[in-house]
Amino acid sequence: MRSGEIRAAALELFARHGYEATTMADIGAAVGIRGPSLYKHVKSKQDLLAQVMTETMGELLAAHHTAVATTTDPVERLRRATEAHVRYHARHRLEAFVGNREIRSLTEPSLGRLLAMRAEYETCFRDLVNAGITANRFHVTSARLTSYAILDLGMGVAAWYREDGELSEDAVTWQYGEFALRLAGA
Amino acid sequence: MRSGEIRAAALELFARHGYEATTMADIGAAVGIRGPSLYKHVKSKQDLLAQVMTETMGELLAAHHTAVATTTDPVERLRRATEAHVRYHARHRLEAFVGNREIRSLTEPSLGRLLAMRAEYETCFRDLVNAGITANRFHVTSARLTSYAILDLGMGVAAWYREDGELSEDAVTWQYGEFALRLAGA
Repeated sequence: MRSGEIRAAALELFARHGYEATTMADIGAAVGIRGPSLYKHVKSKQDLLAQVMTETMGELLAAHHTAVATTTDPVERLRRATEAHVRYHARHRLEAFVGNREIRSLTEPSLGRLLAMRAEYETCFRDLVNAGITANRFHVTSARLTSYAILDLGMGVAAWYREDGELSEDAVTWQYGEFALRLAGA
Repeated sequence: MRSGEIRAAALELFARHGYEATTMADIGAAVGIRGPSLYKHVKSKQDLLAQVMTETMGELLAAHHTAVATTTDPVERLRRATEAHVRYHARHRLEAFVGNREIRSLTEPSLGRLLAMRAEYETCFRDLVNAGITANRFHVTSARLTSYAILDLGMGVAAWYREDGELSEDAVTWQYGEFALRLAGA
């Protein structure tokens, strides 16, 4: 579909040159659409950035809910949520990169919507940590910092992971799931 | 000093607009130097980026060596190295941000030099983890992933930490030092 192709090209260009340095003409050239015809498919460069970023957060939230629905055990829930988080970041490095670096380029109302989705995602992890504390399975002094630290791990993976590197996606995912449990004092 | 001022202005502009979208004229305007006079102080925009990035890694390495020199205990060494890492990132968020996002904008020979400094820094952490394993104080399956995870925590702090936030720099620093020991299975 045309608009998916345009979004993919925009993501690539935003990642390579930055949002500000990318023009609609660059995006058009990348998908072979010249001049104003591009505007039949997308409203604006800002709209493309908003689409890319909210789509990413939507996928991440969906992956999270799928992961935690597979068990009721609080320790396993945090493990699977972290595995889903890390795996998504290993597979969507450009999205993570653009998401982090271009948050300042997003304007309202998209910025507010995106920040709300991020807060919701962080709250999911904090709730998992708190559930484990209540069940006397986790031991931490700050559920908030624990959830931050676990989320930080995923961002880190997006920054350094390479498909052709020494470590496989599975190895990183399982190890980081284990790390999350260590952080939570399981 | 003039060149320090120019570097600070460049850092601010690179962080706000990205390296590509920033011009030497923008940097000149930010410090009140017009036209070609700026070139009396700096060689090029690329040179400014290289200076900012290598200076940051140099400071981080120096902070690390200071931290580990204060004790010979492998557990305390990892704790203090992590504390130095996290504190630096809490205080130098723009540098961390630009360092991560503009690594692709750096050209040789600066790129090679910077990547070597980063590898050296990562090796420092891996060596600390390995020293703790040898001393039977740490328990991990991969010293490499453990060092990656600890470094990821610092990058994360640079992304979310705010001076006016709920959590103080000390609270974050001490908690993350503790997290590093948990990751290492101390």
